[in-house]
Amino acid sequence: MPVVFTWKVRIYYEDTDAGGIVYYANYLKFFERARTEWLRTMHLQQQDLIESHNAMFVVTRATVDYHAPARLDDEITLRLSIEKLGHVSVEFLQHAHCGDNLVATGRFKVCCVDSAGVRPIAMPAAVAARMRGH
Amino acid sequence: MPVVFTWKVRIYYEDTDAGGIVYYANYLKFFERARTEWLRTMHLQQQDLIESHNAMFVVTRATVDYHAPARLDDEITLRLSIEKLGHVSVEFLQHAHCGDNLVATGRFKVCCVDSAGVRPIAMPAAVAARMRGH
Amino acid sequence: MPVVFTWKVRIYYEDTDAGGIVYYANYLKFFERARTEWLRTMHLQQQDLIESHNAMFVVTRATVDYHAPARLDDEITLRLSIEKLGHVSVEFLQHAHCGDNLVATGRFKVCCVDSAGVRPIAMPAAVAARMRGH
Amino acid sequence: MPVVFTWKVRIYYEDTDAGGIVYYANYLKFFERARTEWLRTMHLQQQDLIESHNAMFVVTRATVDYHAPARLDDEITLRLSIEKLGHVSVEFLQHAHCGDNLVATGRFKVCCVDSAGVRPIAMPAAVAARMRGH
Repeated sequence: MPVVFTWKVRIYYEDTDAGGIVYYANYLKFFERARTEWLRTMHLQQQDLIESHNAMFVVTRATVDYHAPARLDDEITLRLSIEKLGHVSVEFLQHAHCGDNLVATGRFKVCCVDSAGVRPIAMPAAVAARMRGH
Repeated sequence: MPVVFTWKVRIYYEDTDAGGIVYYANYLKFFERARTEWLRTMHLQQQDLIESHNAMFVVTRATVDYHAPARLDDEITLRLSIEKLGHVSVEFLQHAHCGDNLVATGRFKVCCVDSAGVRPIAMPAAVAARMRGH
Repeated sequence: MPVVFTWKVRIYYEDTDAGGIVYYANYLKFFERARTEWLRTMHLQQQDLIESHNAMFVVTRATVDYHAPARLDDEITLRLSIEKLGHVSVEFLQHAHCGDNLVATGRFKVCCVDSAGVRPIAMPAAVAARMRGH
Repeated sequence: MPVVFTWKVRIYYEDTDAGGIVYYANYLKFFERARTEWLRTMHLQQQDLIESHNAMFVVTRATVDYHAPARLDDEITLRLSIEKLGHVSVEFLQHAHCGDNLVATGRFKVCCVDSAGVRPIAMPAAVAARMRGH
């Protein structure tokens, strides 16, 4: 599966916990930042989606495997692949590396829903086209 | 100044950082939980304020003095006093103790704004009355 | 699978996002609070584990299915079951309900590691015994 | 007071709340990111401070004035000035702008403490020298 986007994040105190390592829930933030920045490269800002298409992306399933700890001041490289592109949902495979070490793998199923965040809707055609074209 | 409300929070990994202590921004969460629970005792839920009164409370000034660190598994007691009750805003003095030790002092100026979060509005009469009566 | 522990959390502004719903990463915090409070009922505080046993629990795999949104002021009930209790790891099944509605299901594999957070170690006998006895 | 450092952050869902705006505690994260990145330009990484100097910086007083809301997808520019450089502490004045709009002003007193996070110590000479030279 080709990597379609790469994004870097830095680890700050806010990201760590008393175990001295990155707090486990925060990888979901990092993986989302990468997905958001990938959308931004296609001029698909989340706020625009709501305003123009009455649509939001919501994650319906998240799986993270934690392979190794990341720590304060580390720079994490996030790589994003598309596993499956459907009418209503997209499935992403995402890897977080610190240097050459794989620290976490994320799998995310993201669904397009109406702006109330409840009812699944087909992805706006313009959005799907841009995702396919990428 | 009388203490009008007391609330307890427990420190979890999510609240700490790699320094082994509670991350400094998280005290703003704890102090807000206490203010929210105090409002709840008066049947003033934040969501109801938006729906019934088209009003939200937003913090316009926050000051926190950090006296001592709190750590994983600590139980923090939050005490709340009202310093000043105006037409549009309220000023709170809040203390966070771990056992007998004062760990942090917070001062918060909270303003009533419209539901867009922008324009200051007078506190709904029912809200002000309940705050005064407390 | 029997529910061995139940814990409630309240949704504050800190837990929500601009979609008007609970931010997806925050369920990992809630599920961890429940696991931590369950350990506490067995007098197994995280800080004690580090100090007495040179051991920490780290999550090695987290899966969350998001069934329905939770919102500001909601009270979430967290139920915890043990799917598998091994020598080095435990697997939890956790459900988050808002009233009668299932909002999220979590599956967590938690491993016992040394206090540096790196090397897997057998769970301290006292810890395993208490988990089994529960 | 001269601006000694500028840093930009992007607003993601993780930073916002159900009011549709950036959650108030998160500005403390953003302002800290800017201070950390400024230290990094002087080759003063937080982890190195702990390891080489047995020293940490902790915030002893934080004040934030919230002037206007920031929202999803906004890019925030953070500007940092030094108000006072003492032996044990530094006082920072920090501004957060969204485009030309001032959204928040922060004042932070940061103290140098031992690696246990408790006892104030004089800033390591190398650190103070680099701060003065900047």
